[in-house]
Amino acid sequence: MSEWTLSRRAARMNPSVLRELLKLTERPGIISFAGGLPSPQTFPVTAFAHACQSVLERDGPLALQYAASEGFTPLREWVAHHLPWSVDPAQVLITTGSQQGLDLVGKVLIDTGSRVLVETPTYLGALQAFAPMEPEIHSVSSDEEGLLPDGMATHANAARFLYVLPNFQNPTGRTLSESRREALVQTCQSLNLPLVEDNPYGDLWFEKPPPAPLAARHPEGVIYLGSFSKVLAPGLRLGYVVAPKTVYPKLLQAKQAADLHSPSFNQRMVYEVLKDGFLEQHVPSIRALYRHQCTVMLDALAQAMEGLDVSWNSPDGGMFLWARLPEGMDAVDLLPRAIEKGVAFVPGAAFFANEVDSRALRLSFVTASEDQIRVGIQALAQTIRETQKEMAAC
Amino acid sequence: MSEWTLSRRAARMNPSVLRELLKLTERPGIISFAGGLPSPQTFPVTAFAHACQSVLERDGPLALQYAASEGFTPLREWVAHHLPWSVDPAQVLITTGSQQGLDLVGKVLIDTGSRVLVETPTYLGALQAFAPMEPEIHSVSSDEEGLLPDGMATHANAARFLYVLPNFQNPTGRTLSESRREALVQTCQSLNLPLVEDNPYGDLWFEKPPPAPLAARHPEGVIYLGSFSKVLAPGLRLGYVVAPKTVYPKLLQAKQAADLHSPSFNQRMVYEVLKDGFLEQHVPSIRALYRHQCTVMLDALAQAMEGLDVSWNSPDGGMFLWARLPEGMDAVDLLPRAIEKGVAFVPGAAFFANEVDSRALRLSFVTASEDQIRVGIQALAQTIRETQKEMAAC
Repeated sequence: MSEWTLSRRAARMNPSVLRELLKLTERPGIISFAGGLPSPQTFPVTAFAHACQSVLERDGPLALQYAASEGFTPLREWVAHHLPWSVDPAQVLITTGSQQGLDLVGKVLIDTGSRVLVETPTYLGALQAFAPMEPEIHSVSSDEEGLLPDGMATHANAARFLYVLPNFQNPTGRTLSESRREALVQTCQSLNLPLVEDNPYGDLWFEKPPPAPLAARHPEGVIYLGSFSKVLAPGLRLGYVVAPKTVYPKLLQAKQAADLHSPSFNQRMVYEVLKDGFLEQHVPSIRALYRHQCTVMLDALAQAMEGLDVSWNSPDGGMFLWARLPEGMDAVDLLPRAIEKGVAFVPGAAFFANEVDSRALRLSFVTASEDQIRVGIQALAQTIRETQKEMAAC
Repeated sequence: MSEWTLSRRAARMNPSVLRELLKLTERPGIISFAGGLPSPQTFPVTAFAHACQSVLERDGPLALQYAASEGFTPLREWVAHHLPWSVDPAQVLITTGSQQGLDLVGKVLIDTGSRVLVETPTYLGALQAFAPMEPEIHSVSSDEEGLLPDGMATHANAARFLYVLPNFQNPTGRTLSESRREALVQTCQSLNLPLVEDNPYGDLWFEKPPPAPLAARHPEGVIYLGSFSKVLAPGLRLGYVVAPKTVYPKLLQAKQAADLHSPSFNQRMVYEVLKDGFLEQHVPSIRALYRHQCTVMLDALAQAMEGLDVSWNSPDGGMFLWARLPEGMDAVDLLPRAIEKGVAFVPGAAFFANEVDSRALRLSFVTASEDQIRVGIQALAQTIRETQKEMAAC
């Protein structure tokens, strides 16, 4: 007999609704708008194949050896030089996906019971990364222009930080407007409230780049998280944190303790792909593809949802849009019915730390093909229509 | 102005002595016995180059996409089938190095103030991984045969687990004997004390394999950690956790939150290398090399330390041996003097959670070449001799 006593923090971890859904969506025949999977069409397989060979031939033993926890120096320099404000490479920490950046931020800034502010709705993975550190999460409202800085003062007292995802947000696809960014930074400065800015989607704009990052406006007050998952490929698990010099050493120590360093081979391989300006040709092709896919989904929605009290937004970039079901309809209840009809989405409820909007749902327009988008949205509309009829009959 | 309030847990993270030392050892001309770096000669660069090509050609998009948090199924099956007890692949969780396994175990089992037992001395990286969860660490004594189970009862009350590294331990190179293993498992069963068994070096035996793992004797009471870093290459950052079914789901949730999953590309690449029995030829060559290097170091020590009151052990495998300086000499003080003479080691003090043996030091025999070992041990002996003279003169 052995009794395993789990930590209190373990009780706060929940199975990822997203991850469990990914399993459902693996069922053959399901059209999935659920996962946040980049389109595999965009993965530069050939460039990676060449990079693997070059790295192994030239630097095999170094690429396969233990390496510095900070990350591969040329990659850190590349990151620093490509950010739109003055960043010292010494402030860049390479992480095992930007998800790990959230884990490290949580460890370094959150004590049991610490207050943490998040925009609402917010990235589920951030809530999951912070949960083991046992924070008290406060939700700050947002609208179509993103987070509402006015509502912050009531929550900000002694808060450790505000977590915000300003560009083509996950889950809503919303972009924090220029005026909101200015107001937010001013409010945070006056409240002495640090910011954690997550920017995995910023490069995926459709018509024009989003406004400058919050970190560019207030570098000392912001930890900035970036990722190679959406502009290259998520399967290499590489992201980065840019941190003020007062916080960096502790993030580095947390990184050492978490996994020693991110794979040296992957860091060198990604640098090999990036170093000669590959992204300048590559990212525009991702933008064009996602813009097109988004248009297809918006058109399909307009057609299929006709006459239904369903609303949705029109994002300026990224991978997601945010829809709202007719009054009285619950997205969690709708999901199994939709899956029966061959289509999956993520109920919005997954993305609220406190009060839930049960009518909301997240639709990804990047993983499914054009045809699948049309068929899937049709199936979703059909599900809603039938559900509404049943509700009316009750 | 932005004030960053760091967590209490952050104050418990210390810069890794090992990591800081690795920087010193990068100084040109230093012979390093400090790092735990496998010999780059053992990295199968060509096999990896072929594996990269096969994986990218055959499964490029899948290898570069997000994947299940549990890990790549064929790799989990491979792990389960190659362990010397009955393991269900569903119990195997692929981690970003076995260091991440320690981080996940800490999150899932440790609350602030929870008692955790470790053998002493113990792996520094485990102390660092557990530290952010704010445990109360209790040290259990060990001798040449490894941990002493007799001393455990006084510490075990309400302890969450005992962390132990039974094979060619880091830092001591010691192996837990068969009789101690039996006694330890019995003691843990009677005390209701779970075990966390770390086995990164078990395959690196010189003459004969070590006794069976603790997990093989008591699968329900042991979380077992393994690694590909020492039998393939550390730069890919792949390890695994085998956990009882009562604990596995929480470890998986912690894994999801920590980095979503370990790099899918690396998992497929490693599986590609392993699947046709590569290790059966490869690991014996690592064993032979390390056995030889160990012999070279032992011979060099016997010769160079003649007449000095310095002792050391003769490990049966792994990468390290454990030496002890003359009475009154402190390994931390000796280190800068040794570096001046061109040789580096890790002071034993780094590996004690509680009371320190300041005379102890860890010597790695796998990274330096034969000639470097001879020259480096000579330089170390010279440093000790001179220090002793100065001490006598005071």
